[in-house]
Amino acid sequence: MEQDKKMVKQITSMDENFAQWYTDICKKADLIDYSSVKGCMIIRPYGYAIWENIQRILDSKFKETGHENVYMPMFITESLLQKEKDHVAGFAPEVAWVTYGGSEKLTERLCVRPTSETLFCEHFANIIRSYRDLPKLYNQWCSVVRWEKTTRPFLRSREFLWQEGHTMHATREEAEAETLRQLDCYADFFINELGIPVIKGRKTESDKFAGAVATYAIEALMHDGKALQAGTSHYFGDGFARAFDITFTDKDNKLTYPHQTSWGVSTRVIGAIIMSHGDDNGLVLPPAVAPIQVVILPVAQHKPGVLEKAAELKDRLSKRFKVRLDDSDNSAGWKFAEYEMKGVPVRLEIGPRDIENNVCVLVTRHNREKTVVGLDGLEDAVAAKLKEVRDGIYRKALDNLNRRTYKCTSIDEIKTALSDKGDGIVRAMWCGEEECEDKVKELTGVGSRCIPFDSEKISDKCVCCGRPAKHMVCWGVAY
Amino acid sequence: MEQDKKMVKQITSMDENFAQWYTDICKKADLIDYSSVKGCMIIRPYGYAIWENIQRILDSKFKETGHENVYMPMFITESLLQKEKDHVAGFAPEVAWVTYGGSEKLTERLCVRPTSETLFCEHFANIIRSYRDLPKLYNQWCSVVRWEKTTRPFLRSREFLWQEGHTMHATREEAEAETLRQLDCYADFFINELGIPVIKGRKTESDKFAGAVATYAIEALMHDGKALQAGTSHYFGDGFARAFDITFTDKDNKLTYPHQTSWGVSTRVIGAIIMSHGDDNGLVLPPAVAPIQVVILPVAQHKPGVLEKAAELKDRLSKRFKVRLDDSDNSAGWKFAEYEMKGVPVRLEIGPRDIENNVCVLVTRHNREKTVVGLDGLEDAVAAKLKEVRDGIYRKALDNLNRRTYKCTSIDEIKTALSDKGDGIVRAMWCGEEECEDKVKELTGVGSRCIPFDSEKISDKCVCCGRPAKHMVCWGVAY
Repeated sequence: MEQDKKMVKQITSMDENFAQWYTDICKKADLIDYSSVKGCMIIRPYGYAIWENIQRILDSKFKETGHENVYMPMFITESLLQKEKDHVAGFAPEVAWVTYGGSEKLTERLCVRPTSETLFCEHFANIIRSYRDLPKLYNQWCSVVRWEKTTRPFLRSREFLWQEGHTMHATREEAEAETLRQLDCYADFFINELGIPVIKGRKTESDKFAGAVATYAIEALMHDGKALQAGTSHYFGDGFARAFDITFTDKDNKLTYPHQTSWGVSTRVIGAIIMSHGDDNGLVLPPAVAPIQVVILPVAQHKPGVLEKAAELKDRLSKRFKVRLDDSDNSAGWKFAEYEMKGVPVRLEIGPRDIENNVCVLVTRHNREKTVVGLDGLEDAVAAKLKEVRDGIYRKALDNLNRRTYKCTSIDEIKTALSDKGDGIVRAMWCGEEECEDKVKELTGVGSRCIPFDSEKISDKCVCCGRPAKHMVCWGVAY
Repeated sequence: MEQDKKMVKQITSMDENFAQWYTDICKKADLIDYSSVKGCMIIRPYGYAIWENIQRILDSKFKETGHENVYMPMFITESLLQKEKDHVAGFAPEVAWVTYGGSEKLTERLCVRPTSETLFCEHFANIIRSYRDLPKLYNQWCSVVRWEKTTRPFLRSREFLWQEGHTMHATREEAEAETLRQLDCYADFFINELGIPVIKGRKTESDKFAGAVATYAIEALMHDGKALQAGTSHYFGDGFARAFDITFTDKDNKLTYPHQTSWGVSTRVIGAIIMSHGDDNGLVLPPAVAPIQVVILPVAQHKPGVLEKAAELKDRLSKRFKVRLDDSDNSAGWKFAEYEMKGVPVRLEIGPRDIENNVCVLVTRHNREKTVVGLDGLEDAVAAKLKEVRDGIYRKALDNLNRRTYKCTSIDEIKTALSDKGDGIVRAMWCGEEECEDKVKELTGVGSRCIPFDSEKISDKCVCCGRPAKHMVCWGVAY
């Protein structure tokens, strides 16, 4: 029947229109759908399965280091939100307010959590008494709401899914170590599991989280040269503890304020994957989070023995990998395109001649490289290919980052680099004054992304004012 | 130090005050905490770990039968909620309304989802075209909000966590089979994993889900003789499909409305566990969902070799079970009480004399039975004990249900049974008229819980009006 014939999906080329290419992938790879609820998205099964894999890996890392999951209310009373003054100033303009319960007007309005520091603090005040109650290492998987004006799937939406870690410690040193440990946890996850290189660094004062003493972030560079803040980790000192009157009796029997951290990554990770690895044929998924790691496509599947062999390989491989066998009657061309669109890391083709020769063909998604491999020991060949994919996409993303990193010593050099080579990460010195930070952005278009841990001395002087430099900053255009 | 000395926790006896006993367990077993957000609860690590285990088991059952997880927005526009008239009538009075985003008044107010049929239907209308797109078997894990007046932890709170399955099928038969399959899935989970006997049945017309053709439920009887609706499964026919204009081309190329189901269980399950198995010493957890299945308590742990042996047993048992070793300096009495309060199914005690004899002591939580077992083959002994716990608590709960089930043929018999033996499940005939249903409740206090699948003919006549009976109904006082 006409309406059932499946068409090969077309997407915009990324060189032609990167933003449209991104949206096309989100839709055509069946990651999301829109609804009549403006600014919110529907995460479809294929997209949600990626998120489940991300959750599984991170959750197990968090638990290995002693973190426990909890669930806080999704509402925050207005008075609770107002307890820490920097925090409310940062978040109040972008929260959704509940004012009615059924037909009754609420006596105090409630916001839908944009983040849960205030809720955790109220709870910590109830349960922390003694140094023996510390540290408290908590994490929460939930959705949060921020009333954004312009939204894009995964990158910026009014509601998004995330995890938020919230911890309390007896000393400043412990809390600072936790902040950096969790930043490292994110960086390791991005590099090793997702094949995405990241820049680890500290945010400048003007870019800190509302209420934090220090905010650290991992920044990743997308295909188009724009930077994506992919995860953050905050050290709060005892500011919230003072505002919420959280105290404990220390070992010397003295009443003390504990030190606090929070850290989070969100469904933004999926946006980072799309824009780090995707190409004009669609998504390219890191094997660690791919819902399907290997798709088996039988060739000439009507010939005797082909489907049986394909099913046998599926059973074998399913013991170690996430495998799908597509024995539908869609054309081979449609199937190739469909699983490329969906970014399946390895495609396995098997036909009558392969069966005769006791081999099959493995095709890696990121470079379309074909390899004929023997069916004996197929499992190890597939494992090696999956590792090749992770390594290959990481190298490619790292090349992009290196190629698009510009060391500059003047505003003019920044302008020239950006106009010659396109958006990227500018490494340049800064005096530490907010005025210069703003001026660099105004004059060149790149804002400060972070003061990276792998700093270097590019010159003695601020790239903007020429006064003595305090920090080397990574500048970029942010998502 | 005085403030660090841990006190054995006391709870109210369940015979004295069942409601207070329940609340005490929720607090003292560290399941929940309250916050300033009225009617919402904080699920603490120990409570949340139980929920994670429930999720893990159910999610894998759902996936085995082909269901896929998705994520829908948490908001529903007012116009979307109003599309199906019975549905909006049922839910509008109890939803929380968002009216402001930041400082801007919304042009259309949004409710926080009380359930997501409308969102799923809008999405289904987008993605279902042909019979080849069916069935759609979706599930979502999320939190929902219903603006209840009186709330109790796990049983009835303004926000609660749940899963909601939403499926679409080509035929009525398929959809009805799905509705019953998922009800069976819940019943199996309750019986086999949680050790809670349930009554499977259909709700009467007056007690159906808003918008459903038929609602099925599993009902469990709590310690105090009250019934808890523990899971529901709905068949919608094509009512929502018509309201949302969801159509597909069937095999005969005819435009047709698909048939729909939804089904859900919530954190209420934890309430059911507490009130089915708990006792005056605290929680009693079914091994399948216990965050700690075995707690190892070293006896005379200062003596040489004891802690080493305890740690060795922990390593061994951790390969198969969830194990905690408590080698803290809290007293043995405190530890016994603490892990009884937390409902840990098996306690393992090991001291110097045990080590000499190559044995240890296993104590099962539900009956405090002590068994000396050899350390060789300990794993199998522990597995057998865990099975004993599941079987033991199931038998006890089933005894409670049987003892508290009253077959009655008149209003007077119902009154007598309830006043003589306390609340329970009344099995009595019904003519099918809502008037009689209401009158039974008015006169005796028990409402219709369901028309059970294991019906029997107790008499020919309605227990209330004496006219010919249509159904046997299970009546009870509901949580």
